[in-house]
Amino acid sequence: MKNTFGNSVTITLFGESHGPETGAVLDGLAAGLPVDEAFIANRLALRRPAGRISTARQEEDPFRIVSGVFEGKTTGTPLAILIPNGDTRSGDYTRGPARPGHADYTAFVRYQGFEDYRGGGHFSGRITAALTAAGAIALHALEHRGIRIGTHIARCAGIDDARFSADPAEDIRRLNSLSFAVLDDAAGEKMRAAIEQAAAEGDSVGGVLETLITGLPAGVGEPWFDTLEGELAHMLFSIPAVKGVEFGDGFALADMKGSEANDPFVLRNGRTETLTNRNGGINGGISNGMPVLFRCAVKPTPSIRKEQRTVNMIENREETLVIAGRHDPAVVHRARAVADSAAALAVMDMLAQRFGTDWIRGNAE
Amino acid sequence: MKNTFGNSVTITLFGESHGPETGAVLDGLAAGLPVDEAFIANRLALRRPAGRISTARQEEDPFRIVSGVFEGKTTGTPLAILIPNGDTRSGDYTRGPARPGHADYTAFVRYQGFEDYRGGGHFSGRITAALTAAGAIALHALEHRGIRIGTHIARCAGIDDARFSADPAEDIRRLNSLSFAVLDDAAGEKMRAAIEQAAAEGDSVGGVLETLITGLPAGVGEPWFDTLEGELAHMLFSIPAVKGVEFGDGFALADMKGSEANDPFVLRNGRTETLTNRNGGINGGISNGMPVLFRCAVKPTPSIRKEQRTVNMIENREETLVIAGRHDPAVVHRARAVADSAAALAVMDMLAQRFGTDWIRGNAE
Amino acid sequence: MKNTFGNSVTITLFGESHGPETGAVLDGLAAGLPVDEAFIANRLALRRPAGRISTARQEEDPFRIVSGVFEGKTTGTPLAILIPNGDTRSGDYTRGPARPGHADYTAFVRYQGFEDYRGGGHFSGRITAALTAAGAIALHALEHRGIRIGTHIARCAGIDDARFSADPAEDIRRLNSLSFAVLDDAAGEKMRAAIEQAAAEGDSVGGVLETLITGLPAGVGEPWFDTLEGELAHMLFSIPAVKGVEFGDGFALADMKGSEANDPFVLRNGRTETLTNRNGGINGGISNGMPVLFRCAVKPTPSIRKEQRTVNMIENREETLVIAGRHDPAVVHRARAVADSAAALAVMDMLAQRFGTDWIRGNAE
Amino acid sequence: MKNTFGNSVTITLFGESHGPETGAVLDGLAAGLPVDEAFIANRLALRRPAGRISTARQEEDPFRIVSGVFEGKTTGTPLAILIPNGDTRSGDYTRGPARPGHADYTAFVRYQGFEDYRGGGHFSGRITAALTAAGAIALHALEHRGIRIGTHIARCAGIDDARFSADPAEDIRRLNSLSFAVLDDAAGEKMRAAIEQAAAEGDSVGGVLETLITGLPAGVGEPWFDTLEGELAHMLFSIPAVKGVEFGDGFALADMKGSEANDPFVLRNGRTETLTNRNGGINGGISNGMPVLFRCAVKPTPSIRKEQRTVNMIENREETLVIAGRHDPAVVHRARAVADSAAALAVMDMLAQRFGTDWIRGNAE
Repeated sequence: MKNTFGNSVTITLFGESHGPETGAVLDGLAAGLPVDEAFIANRLALRRPAGRISTARQEEDPFRIVSGVFEGKTTGTPLAILIPNGDTRSGDYTRGPARPGHADYTAFVRYQGFEDYRGGGHFSGRITAALTAAGAIALHALEHRGIRIGTHIARCAGIDDARFSADPAEDIRRLNSLSFAVLDDAAGEKMRAAIEQAAAEGDSVGGVLETLITGLPAGVGEPWFDTLEGELAHMLFSIPAVKGVEFGDGFALADMKGSEANDPFVLRNGRTETLTNRNGGINGGISNGMPVLFRCAVKPTPSIRKEQRTVNMIENREETLVIAGRHDPAVVHRARAVADSAAALAVMDMLAQRFGTDWIRGNAE
Repeated sequence: MKNTFGNSVTITLFGESHGPETGAVLDGLAAGLPVDEAFIANRLALRRPAGRISTARQEEDPFRIVSGVFEGKTTGTPLAILIPNGDTRSGDYTRGPARPGHADYTAFVRYQGFEDYRGGGHFSGRITAALTAAGAIALHALEHRGIRIGTHIARCAGIDDARFSADPAEDIRRLNSLSFAVLDDAAGEKMRAAIEQAAAEGDSVGGVLETLITGLPAGVGEPWFDTLEGELAHMLFSIPAVKGVEFGDGFALADMKGSEANDPFVLRNGRTETLTNRNGGINGGISNGMPVLFRCAVKPTPSIRKEQRTVNMIENREETLVIAGRHDPAVVHRARAVADSAAALAVMDMLAQRFGTDWIRGNAE
Repeated sequence: MKNTFGNSVTITLFGESHGPETGAVLDGLAAGLPVDEAFIANRLALRRPAGRISTARQEEDPFRIVSGVFEGKTTGTPLAILIPNGDTRSGDYTRGPARPGHADYTAFVRYQGFEDYRGGGHFSGRITAALTAAGAIALHALEHRGIRIGTHIARCAGIDDARFSADPAEDIRRLNSLSFAVLDDAAGEKMRAAIEQAAAEGDSVGGVLETLITGLPAGVGEPWFDTLEGELAHMLFSIPAVKGVEFGDGFALADMKGSEANDPFVLRNGRTETLTNRNGGINGGISNGMPVLFRCAVKPTPSIRKEQRTVNMIENREETLVIAGRHDPAVVHRARAVADSAAALAVMDMLAQRFGTDWIRGNAE
Repeated sequence: MKNTFGNSVTITLFGESHGPETGAVLDGLAAGLPVDEAFIANRLALRRPAGRISTARQEEDPFRIVSGVFEGKTTGTPLAILIPNGDTRSGDYTRGPARPGHADYTAFVRYQGFEDYRGGGHFSGRITAALTAAGAIALHALEHRGIRIGTHIARCAGIDDARFSADPAEDIRRLNSLSFAVLDDAAGEKMRAAIEQAAAEGDSVGGVLETLITGLPAGVGEPWFDTLEGELAHMLFSIPAVKGVEFGDGFALADMKGSEANDPFVLRNGRTETLTNRNGGINGGISNGMPVLFRCAVKPTPSIRKEQRTVNMIENREETLVIAGRHDPAVVHRARAVADSAAALAVMDMLAQRFGTDWIRGNAE
């Protein structure tokens, strides 16, 4: 349903890059979930641009929760979270030339010229702040149920990070404390250098995010259409710049034999597990109790300083374009916080569908 | 919503591998769409196993449309299509050992032991016959509106097919007449040989399907959540064995610079197009009028004859398993008909959301 | 969503009055619910026309469940139930004159002339057989959880039945064994006589159905939009001929003072109940644990033998119409089985939303 | 879906009686609809308490539209409207005794004690301000398409207003200018006197609202489940205190003969109309082009000053309760603005489903 995602736990996003407020409404939450504003602020900080490798736009994200929380816990009624837009410079944007790789042209066609074109309007990456904040509430609640989510920059500018270790829970804990989320610090240094180099050239780079979910019970997902893969992918393709999603070994599975790709079942402490996890914790669209693993391909930021060919939509003529203003030479390092939140929201919805909304709170609360 | 997909045009799937009937209900169709039973039969034939590279199970797919069609055209009320199961051999299946790579274990957990386990039950690839038939109605109707969909086996067992040519409409026309859909016959021969080789080894292979949609108008999709990518991926991950979906250059975009990845806009005959199509016809989640291109990673068929380690779910102990019965050494060549149908259903739903249900029929009918 | 109802447990209806099969797909059912074909057949018999006060069309309703049931219990995957159309006489119907009170004209406009017009097509009361059968599965499962639903003909042709007694559970048990469901046999005799009298005049009568649901836990429903009243009414207005729905004292509440209309809370055996039940077991859209009570106004059957003014839709001219063929001089006594099923489906969906799908099965199974 | 209504055009409500902000998000709107803040303010004024017959709570409703509007027109992306809570006196409310006729008890059970109980929390009539404001945008847009909606107090405290006249468009125009919406001023005077009398007694009264929709095209609605009646009723039962909804002659139809209840079709200026309108403009769940007419039973305000029996939910013991603070001796006159907005939102959604979202804007804009 358009700008709403979810069946049992839903999120609705609103706002424009240069409007007064952006925000999200979460509905279907269990009553009694703890809401920790410091945790939300921390997640927003992970998304925020930082240093030379990000846009100079200062986003302070002073969010306000205006409903659905009472005495520090969710009430179970809709939770609305608002994030005002601060440092907006509408003058940086002019209508007419469609920025290549952006949604200017498709928005113009889709909304027939009535769209708020300033800074990408409703398509702006700015809206992911609200998604990140709303997802932080889900992340926090899932953690209380032993479900942990972490994302690292598996690849950036052609440089690979290390893989998740034999102790993924510790990996996740560590990633969530890092502003540039890599498992291998040396690889991270090379990635930053490559991003700075691209910035110096007026260009941009992309990358691959890899997300791990541990503690998800087996039995979550549906056989047709609302598969765990389908629901997660539906959500993840909303993250601006994501152009591919794969689970487990993903595209590499296409080159394997069945005897390699099948994960053998084994018993560990009386519990059924798989020996390998090439299927990313999902069989037949349903979680099998192993860690869920997926990767998102993030294309390079479309805003670059180099001259580009384009069409002026108002005057219907070709022209060249040099984009002024502030740009991110990469978004992959900021998008990881968005990916965590997106995954948390999709997983919470799937859990609520499977076990009922109250399951999220658990009996211990 | 579980086994239903779509907002404006919906499909609901039902049936089990060894039950009496499988089927689909299509709702929200425009009234007056032509329904051509020969076309549907042809699409089912493309999905059907054939020759040495497929299972020996004979599926004749004698479908019946029992509602929603009157005098050869859709009435606009729900269209139910039934496909009885013919050649079932329930004796081939025993309960207990979870087949690796299949949904046996997850179904057992998800449905708490009440699932129809014979031949994969509701998870069976058999259910894709109903999806293919329902999608054939969408394919046919979209063709009348100038929207054409075609899929080729871009890669199988490590062998690459050719890319789409400069005349994609002709490519699609040709692919839709082939039972083994490749653009390069020589590559196809090698793929078949590799499939036969895997079969001889009691093993299986996977591949990559690449789908092209031409004629889709610009402006279809939503900025958040119901992006064109998100809706298509949601649907495509329902195709059994699909573990990855990418649009345009997909994961390859992650390694490009922004100056390479951005598709410059140009005017062709006064119409805005892009010079390249690295973004697969989609910007900001919305179609830009260029051909939509995506690829699905299809893992190797999990049913193999080789001995595998597994857990007996009923007796909760490890054991080894040799799967008897009929198997496909590959499904990628059969899945292409499913991919076409799946894409047609998702696209028809998105078009109906954008322009209203009647748009699909057009004025000319 | 069009011909689908429900969020967690959904029903989709398909079929036409004179097509080969009608049917329903139930999805989101808990796995392991008992499915009793004799119970379903009994509920269909209650809906079936009987004797002089009904149409002479013989409906035997030999339903088939073709998916979603294995070894006598639901599997949790979609359950499809088919009811073939037997005794169809298409020759009784001609296109052109819109039957007053029927959907002929609105179907013609809605489906632009592509509708199957024979016998009301998809609008036919015939489709309620599938709704009744699907609902019977829900009724049966709810009974296992102590939730009982019963409907009586509270009023017909201006004659009032008795009200529910102090022992509503016993009333429901008795009503469910009656083919003409009244609490007061003498009133029932008068109603039958009035129906026969109307039939003799070539006319028809209507009435009011009153439904009671006992055993529904408190806390089911949502504050806005998906109120218990709103969900039930949404469903109930699908029953052909229903033109009004009221809860508790309904329209009579409009004339009361607040001091009369408010149901005081009291403790009975330590449990909070209300002293009166003028609000029909619902406060603020949510069940309060008291019996849920509602009434549906059923208009007189539109098919009458008397001459009527109308418009010929094909020739666009006024004409008079005498409807030939078989008619029901009343449907209120048959609609009660539909009302029970409709209520059961809506309640099961609301329960699954509140407590999770598995709650319906309970732990005892 | 919980606190969201609609398929194509959706509204999501959030907020609590004593929280900082209440609000609504509208999604799926056509781009380019005019948004007139003065019109919205006027609709909110009609809902606002006034004079001796309303609560003394001063609500100024200084709403802010924070997204989805650009240069005075809708952008087509989600429109969020915020209404801060001003004059809150939380001290007036104590937890424990469940107010009879209110949602205190059901909220306590539903949200397991985590609800914001102050002033009814999310169940408060206060939330209807956001519903009214959002609906005002729909009302305004529908007016531009020739679809007009008006509601009068058909009955209050046992006093009947006049019926709609032969010129309903003029009736609607006049009603929308009145703060106490009656067609017969003398009846209105009697109603006001009865409300004041109830207030003097510390009691409250209810009534019946009657709404007329003119200009709605034929062909809107679906045969099963998403009937026009079902969708409207689903929405209308969200208005606090509504306990019954009937269409056309509603419950009175139950006592008619078919020959009376059937509306004969006639041609007027070559257009098919009905001679009478006992079915309220709807046949088979679909609009027939005649004015749509429905009535809502509004129970008396549950907040009264008289002593009432109740249960203290925290201490689980019976006690007596005298509600302090501000009360409305009637809400029926305020609810009429809510009914107009609710109807406008449901109708806009149904139109968008039928004709596509852009139909709402029309070609002329």
